[in-house]
Amino acid sequence: MKQIDSVKNPQVKAWKKLHNKKDRDKQGLFMVEGFHLVEEAIKNKDCVKELIIRESIEVPAQWNIDGIEITVVNEAIIKLLSDTETPQGIIAVCFQTKHAEIIHTAQKVLLLDAVQDPGNLGTIIRTADAAGVEAIIVGEGSVDVYNPKVVRSTQGAIFHLPIVKGDLLEMISLLKEREIAVYGTSLQNGKVYTCVKPSNEFALVVGNEGNGVSEKVLEQTDQNLYIPIYGKSESLNVAIASGILLYYLRGM
Amino acid sequence: MKQIDSVKNPQVKAWKKLHNKKDRDKQGLFMVEGFHLVEEAIKNKDCVKELIIRESIEVPAQWNIDGIEITVVNEAIIKLLSDTETPQGIIAVCFQTKHAEIIHTAQKVLLLDAVQDPGNLGTIIRTADAAGVEAIIVGEGSVDVYNPKVVRSTQGAIFHLPIVKGDLLEMISLLKEREIAVYGTSLQNGKVYTCVKPSNEFALVVGNEGNGVSEKVLEQTDQNLYIPIYGKSESLNVAIASGILLYYLRGM
Repeated sequence: MKQIDSVKNPQVKAWKKLHNKKDRDKQGLFMVEGFHLVEEAIKNKDCVKELIIRESIEVPAQWNIDGIEITVVNEAIIKLLSDTETPQGIIAVCFQTKHAEIIHTAQKVLLLDAVQDPGNLGTIIRTADAAGVEAIIVGEGSVDVYNPKVVRSTQGAIFHLPIVKGDLLEMISLLKEREIAVYGTSLQNGKVYTCVKPSNEFALVVGNEGNGVSEKVLEQTDQNLYIPIYGKSESLNVAIASGILLYYLRGM
Repeated sequence: MKQIDSVKNPQVKAWKKLHNKKDRDKQGLFMVEGFHLVEEAIKNKDCVKELIIRESIEVPAQWNIDGIEITVVNEAIIKLLSDTETPQGIIAVCFQTKHAEIIHTAQKVLLLDAVQDPGNLGTIIRTADAAGVEAIIVGEGSVDVYNPKVVRSTQGAIFHLPIVKGDLLEMISLLKEREIAVYGTSLQNGKVYTCVKPSNEFALVVGNEGNGVSEKVLEQTDQNLYIPIYGKSESLNVAIASGILLYYLRGM
């Protein structure tokens, strides 16, 4: 166990840099904080690089932390590193994992085209996990998966399934080679979602909060679907739409 | 058109009080702000008491504002009244409507048991509207429907369907007298939701983010349902669960 007491320590500065996407990507790392998220991280031990805990915090006895490096820090350092107003005093530094190969085997795939709200992205990841999705592909223009608000909104699901950053058109082409049906979502053109038969294998593309899935992606799908609006609202939130479609498409 | 230029004007103070639930209920009013929400309010003209606009803001020509009182105010007053960081400069003061009688006629009803997150409540209202729900009953312990964050998250749906504050047990009893099937939601006990047949008439109860629907409510329903979790997440967000269940239960 190491101890660091100065906010000017170079290691503290390196951690603090993980608040920026650019540095997260450069270091290939991201931070999660709070007991629930850190516990979820530790269940996937390979992804944990190290733990940072505040003096007087005790790691729960049932956690398997063998071999994980721990650094004890003071309140000032925790405050500096935390993204929340009342930090719980426990942070895990985790590896960004790649998983690019999953596109060749996953049977239920969710593709995200420029989802921009961190809360939406996190909730979509949580929902996809619950619905048994086996891989999430995050295309260009989406908010960073390792953004602290996204990670928090996943409630740990970020550690439950492979999440891959990738080019949607390439990924769709790979899925089609495997003869997996790829469904886009569109308010304008397409069929009512219930006209598709639920299946063990499918890929679904959901899109940007304002503009939906881009035209060039919609052109490459096998079929585009919409959810009927029976009331006066103009649309559904993208996370809600994802939940309805994923649970419908997978069947029971 | 009136003009007010002092933040100390008694009318301004009365409006500002609408930031508090107690005063909202006492005055029977609430505020909505921004062009989209105010436009939705004006489409339901009877609910608009008056408009407050910043100097130099023009009300869009296509809005039907005949007979609606307008007060022009300065930037300082708008900032005082607004709940957002960059106010659009247009606010409608609206009447809280009652609609208690809707419970006797609505065929699709959503009941909320202590939903506490404003974003969740707003998204649930928006989703219920989209799914064609005809009445929402908000039970004790839920966040106030007229909370500015709730109103904003509804994206206008708060003006699209009757929302009634009421006692859930009483309301369930009235629905059962009308022979409408009342479904609770529960992670522990109940049937998989897909074992229920979609129908033109149903009532669904969803519950608190942490504790779900209370025991005493679950005891009064006709059947309690759950959504299977196929992945490692512990649960679904309550707004997501509402979307999946409402779209399933109503059928096509």
